[in-house]
Amino acid sequence: MGSHLDTVPNAGAFDGILGVVLAVGLLQSLEGRKLPFGIEVVGFSEEEGVRFGVPFIGSRALVGRVDEELLGRKDERGISVRKAIQDFGLNPDEISKAMLSDDVLGYIEFHIEQGPVLENLGRPLGVVEAIVGQNRLEFTFSGQANHAGTTPMNLRHDALAAAAEWILAVETLAQRTSGIAATVGFVEAKPGATNVIAGEARATLDIRHASDRARTEALDELIRQAESIAARRGMAVKWRMLLAQHAVAMDPFLTQQIGEAIHKAGCDVHRMASGAGHDAMILAEKIPAAMIFLRTPGGISHDPSESVHVDDVAKALECGHHLLTQLAASQEFLGRTCRA
Amino acid sequence: MGSHLDTVPNAGAFDGILGVVLAVGLLQSLEGRKLPFGIEVVGFSEEEGVRFGVPFIGSRALVGRVDEELLGRKDERGISVRKAIQDFGLNPDEISKAMLSDDVLGYIEFHIEQGPVLENLGRPLGVVEAIVGQNRLEFTFSGQANHAGTTPMNLRHDALAAAAEWILAVETLAQRTSGIAATVGFVEAKPGATNVIAGEARATLDIRHASDRARTEALDELIRQAESIAARRGMAVKWRMLLAQHAVAMDPFLTQQIGEAIHKAGCDVHRMASGAGHDAMILAEKIPAAMIFLRTPGGISHDPSESVHVDDVAKALECGHHLLTQLAASQEFLGRTCRA
Repeated sequence: MGSHLDTVPNAGAFDGILGVVLAVGLLQSLEGRKLPFGIEVVGFSEEEGVRFGVPFIGSRALVGRVDEELLGRKDERGISVRKAIQDFGLNPDEISKAMLSDDVLGYIEFHIEQGPVLENLGRPLGVVEAIVGQNRLEFTFSGQANHAGTTPMNLRHDALAAAAEWILAVETLAQRTSGIAATVGFVEAKPGATNVIAGEARATLDIRHASDRARTEALDELIRQAESIAARRGMAVKWRMLLAQHAVAMDPFLTQQIGEAIHKAGCDVHRMASGAGHDAMILAEKIPAAMIFLRTPGGISHDPSESVHVDDVAKALECGHHLLTQLAASQEFLGRTCRA
Repeated sequence: MGSHLDTVPNAGAFDGILGVVLAVGLLQSLEGRKLPFGIEVVGFSEEEGVRFGVPFIGSRALVGRVDEELLGRKDERGISVRKAIQDFGLNPDEISKAMLSDDVLGYIEFHIEQGPVLENLGRPLGVVEAIVGQNRLEFTFSGQANHAGTTPMNLRHDALAAAAEWILAVETLAQRTSGIAATVGFVEAKPGATNVIAGEARATLDIRHASDRARTEALDELIRQAESIAARRGMAVKWRMLLAQHAVAMDPFLTQQIGEAIHKAGCDVHRMASGAGHDAMILAEKIPAAMIFLRTPGGISHDPSESVHVDDVAKALECGHHLLTQLAASQEFLGRTCRA
């Protein structure tokens, strides 16, 4: 049970840390009650990846994926991961001892949703069925720069107009395809002058879905549309992949148990995908993992105005209680062996 | 008769200077033949406006529009227009002596088209009926920045998607409205990250037409469309005017005479608007002015690969000869008095 401790710049007070504090509070509220399994609370470092440019460093240690390349990565001040661990008073050569032992039954993570879905449904808690897979790409449309005054509309190869058509196509396809989130967050026209038709336009794509197949099909379709838009406009388009990450399913038994516990806490259950990455998806490589989302007011995260409702935290604790009671009574759960 | 002498950075060899050289060549080819009017060849400075950030300095002197504000403007090295004139050995206080006297019959300018229209029609020469009016504006769409993974499509207020829809609307309206050239050459999304929905998008508009009414109507429609797109998407849009310049008609008698002269030179006549500004539009404030365009290979200008066909220059000289002969024989022309 756990979550992460580090933050992004200008962050809020609940992303990650709420899950750690909530787990500690849950164990305290047991008031010495004995369970048929041990519980450890983990606070992972560097989940966001801001300092060393690579996320999930803490949780990677638990699944044996902290290698020499990772230890050698440096932050902006030239301090390596290895040095940072040493400066903290720990021995990086013993990092393999952090690996999960093979008697671990599972991992549960409480986390703020960081999105508007639960608030929109009026539900305090959600159960995460999967963490979406994602691709990030950059598309470059190459047309013909020209004089904005002397080039008639029918003789143009306007790269920005092509990019605009494709940006709308991305939005339209995503709106029509259930579960897809697709975003063009960056665009640049060159030369980028008011009175010059753009000769080149670069635009990024971020596309996510809980199903790898659905994501890949949508991405293929958007690449086809970019090519078709470019061809019709007599220009070229190229794309390059910046990131490809497959979806990670949460453990079906644990998610079902969480659903029951949410229900017992008096809340309607909403089963959902997480649109963002979490430590749980790293843990899921080795052990059954699952997540409980707390409603996020305004869907606002990574911002000082990030918050939670106190009542929702109480509901999360109540849900945690029911969950521990259910798991303690479950022969299926107690009989499980870890995949690690 | 004349054109301009200065250039843009990394310019070609024909923009402006061809009109000056062509006028000199035309007078030489008269071989002393007497005409019933005098001809002066003018080479205007600073038509492009690159050095002092304001165009048409030379031609403004001829119409009495070089004032103290203009003389005080400085270039990047801190040298004022006044100082530059002094350094050239002239007296800025005598600039009013450059003003056109009231016996001037008219102004003729040869110039490369700087666009692809004549080449596309397969015609060496064109006669300019008007220089388009233009507006430049900046539009800002203000939506809601958000997480590209956790914000479902139906809960977004994506400022870049709004801007993209409007960029396409600009193109569509311009394609459907005869004579309109409308261009979005610059766009910027903020924060501009691959994985963040844009909260703000800025885009420029450059819109031109030979008719002020047609341009104003089209601009009003594009502002309405921006407002309607923003309203439907639950966001705001603001715009500000960067430039508003009315269209300038060339002298009907001179354009008709030029048309005849082009015909006598054995070419088909194409009557057209100039999508770019020229010294002729400044001179037209005071005297009858007209322009003859030469076909521009590839429509390429403001680039070292800018060129003209030698045969087209010969046709332009031939056209100039016919024009001078026609004007010399025209009682209507010789009886004109200048408006200056």
